[in-house]
Amino acid sequence: MKTSRRSAVDAFIVMDVVQAAQEAEAAGRHIIHMEVGQPGSGASASAQAALTDVLATQSLGYTVALGLPALREGIAQLYSDWYGITLDPQRVIVTAGSSGAFLLAFTALFDAGARVGLSEPGYPSYRQILKALDLVPVGVPTHDAAGHRMTPDDLPSDLDGLIVASPANPTGTILDKDAMAALITACADRDAAFISDEIYHGLHFDTPATSALEISDDVYVINSFSKYFSMTGWRIGWMVVPPEHVRTVERLAQNMFICASHAAQVAALGALSCRAEPEEKRSAYAESRALLLEGLPKAGFARIAPPDGAFYIYADVSHLTDDSRALAADMLEHAGVAVTPGLDFDPVRGHHTLRFSYAADPDDIREGLARITKFMQARTDT
Amino acid sequence: MKTSRRSAVDAFIVMDVVQAAQEAEAAGRHIIHMEVGQPGSGASASAQAALTDVLATQSLGYTVALGLPALREGIAQLYSDWYGITLDPQRVIVTAGSSGAFLLAFTALFDAGARVGLSEPGYPSYRQILKALDLVPVGVPTHDAAGHRMTPDDLPSDLDGLIVASPANPTGTILDKDAMAALITACADRDAAFISDEIYHGLHFDTPATSALEISDDVYVINSFSKYFSMTGWRIGWMVVPPEHVRTVERLAQNMFICASHAAQVAALGALSCRAEPEEKRSAYAESRALLLEGLPKAGFARIAPPDGAFYIYADVSHLTDDSRALAADMLEHAGVAVTPGLDFDPVRGHHTLRFSYAADPDDIREGLARITKFMQARTDT
Repeated sequence: MKTSRRSAVDAFIVMDVVQAAQEAEAAGRHIIHMEVGQPGSGASASAQAALTDVLATQSLGYTVALGLPALREGIAQLYSDWYGITLDPQRVIVTAGSSGAFLLAFTALFDAGARVGLSEPGYPSYRQILKALDLVPVGVPTHDAAGHRMTPDDLPSDLDGLIVASPANPTGTILDKDAMAALITACADRDAAFISDEIYHGLHFDTPATSALEISDDVYVINSFSKYFSMTGWRIGWMVVPPEHVRTVERLAQNMFICASHAAQVAALGALSCRAEPEEKRSAYAESRALLLEGLPKAGFARIAPPDGAFYIYADVSHLTDDSRALAADMLEHAGVAVTPGLDFDPVRGHHTLRFSYAADPDDIREGLARITKFMQARTDT
Repeated sequence: MKTSRRSAVDAFIVMDVVQAAQEAEAAGRHIIHMEVGQPGSGASASAQAALTDVLATQSLGYTVALGLPALREGIAQLYSDWYGITLDPQRVIVTAGSSGAFLLAFTALFDAGARVGLSEPGYPSYRQILKALDLVPVGVPTHDAAGHRMTPDDLPSDLDGLIVASPANPTGTILDKDAMAALITACADRDAAFISDEIYHGLHFDTPATSALEISDDVYVINSFSKYFSMTGWRIGWMVVPPEHVRTVERLAQNMFICASHAAQVAALGALSCRAEPEEKRSAYAESRALLLEGLPKAGFARIAPPDGAFYIYADVSHLTDDSRALAADMLEHAGVAVTPGLDFDPVRGHHTLRFSYAADPDDIREGLARITKFMQARTDT
């Protein structure tokens, strides 16, 4: 049997780092993990308790494809709490993480051959999922000078859709309301679908991020319990679609997924009931972020995108190397700190960038920073 | 925004039945559920215990894309226990239910426009997932006279792939080893990929079903914890692929899913550790099956496919009606029993068929049969 052309997606380069880090740990070394895009701790006590409560008493069979009604209502409530907007729960579709939402959005919106824009740098799986669905990813380079924030001037004229993330991965930059509105208008002008990836909402350190739903109802908004609610491995997220798209997405979801994990839906509903724990985690990220913003420039990483949200700092290292992969490998070997070379996020310019994640425990970040500082000092000295 | 052409998949006709049954229950009526394809009870005690054990102590972050190594080993062990074959755990890919496995298999194997055969009658989502991925579903009608078992003579010459289920949904029929080997050979002759849906394995009532892996390594085998292990809502399944396909599917899985639900993987590992509970459930299905095999013909449903496995009986009702949907609606209204009209499984001939599921509790099946018998008697009398 032969594999398809569309299955020839790229491997994650960060997996080499992850693998090398695991091997170092297996060999007894202590590694600080600043390569992973997930919180160091898991689901909140309220999420765990919600699941424990039903585990022995309910059979946890299939839910309806769009998700538990109470969970859809709880998510709609979040839009009132966070953005002050009234959202009909009927427009909320519970998904198997944001990954499941992308599969649904891309199949609902695009036919084979459609051209879909995505920022470079950006989340690498956008590109690979599009390829796997016989769609054409169109890289839209963003620029240092603009804080890596996409503008209408960056967009090609022939797009069928555009994915925008704010706060962004890997840069952490946030688009303000005017900037996002300008992109939505530019898409409408092109008759291109606008998909807003809001997976890092809740994780801002100054002004909260704008939801595309504050600007228009004619957008797809994708979010997840993975980041703010620390539920990465549960694979539970959601999507908000225009009212007239709900039935289409429901039929796709029935067939492609049947439903999101019932256990994860129960835990997610529990997570919504207590906002104190994720806010404590946000405080911890803020502490780590402050540490890095002070320490990384001193260590030699001063050229960074505005880290408005998420838990990443994206640094230009072109003054240090033309091979970010080798720099990351050196840092792992000599400093025991795992970071991500930029090539996964930006295949063109990523050899000149590194991403530092500060989702781990602040004590680990403190230790990581100390090790990086020492490593860079030694590197300068030689 | 407009939706894509490929998103125009069909709605499930059974959802009308489900909706009507829910409304009847909301109005205070007691309904027997013989329309659903899931066990009446949930995951085993060992599955629940495994998850409870880790819930408070582990963060349940992302697993590697292919799944927890211990779970992959446990699944490989199942092939030794069930079929006496040695399976390299490296070939086992843990998926988000069999649904996730279909998405991975179809994208790994087929490019847009590829023609993929599937039996009519058959699981309706094959057709809809293929459409959503810009692939061309090719219905292969099977025949009453052959017990609805597909043969090489049924296959068109121009196929890029074929999906076969044994035990089958909705018929419950099992292909013996020679019959499956003949189909695998017919596919090899056509250079078509062979995908074996083995989701109902373990649920046989005489001779166990043959796995395609007993015949060839050059096949995709899809299975799940949903049916035999009663874990429908957890969304956890697996796929076995040829060794040289593992890396391709791994890269797709990393991007399209990141991983299957970690909590569900832990529960599934627990489920594997105790085989007594699923075997008890199989005994209950056997009891229900015997009841129906005795009672349904007396009630007027004598033309049924050989119900070798799964928990379904598929009946030809062409002597009773040309409108199976109306017959199912009548049975719900007048007998309080929900069954599935055949149109979801066979768009061409399904107006002449009904599917009875006996996955519910045997007492419910007994009551359902009594109601159906009375309903049919009244129908004959008028």
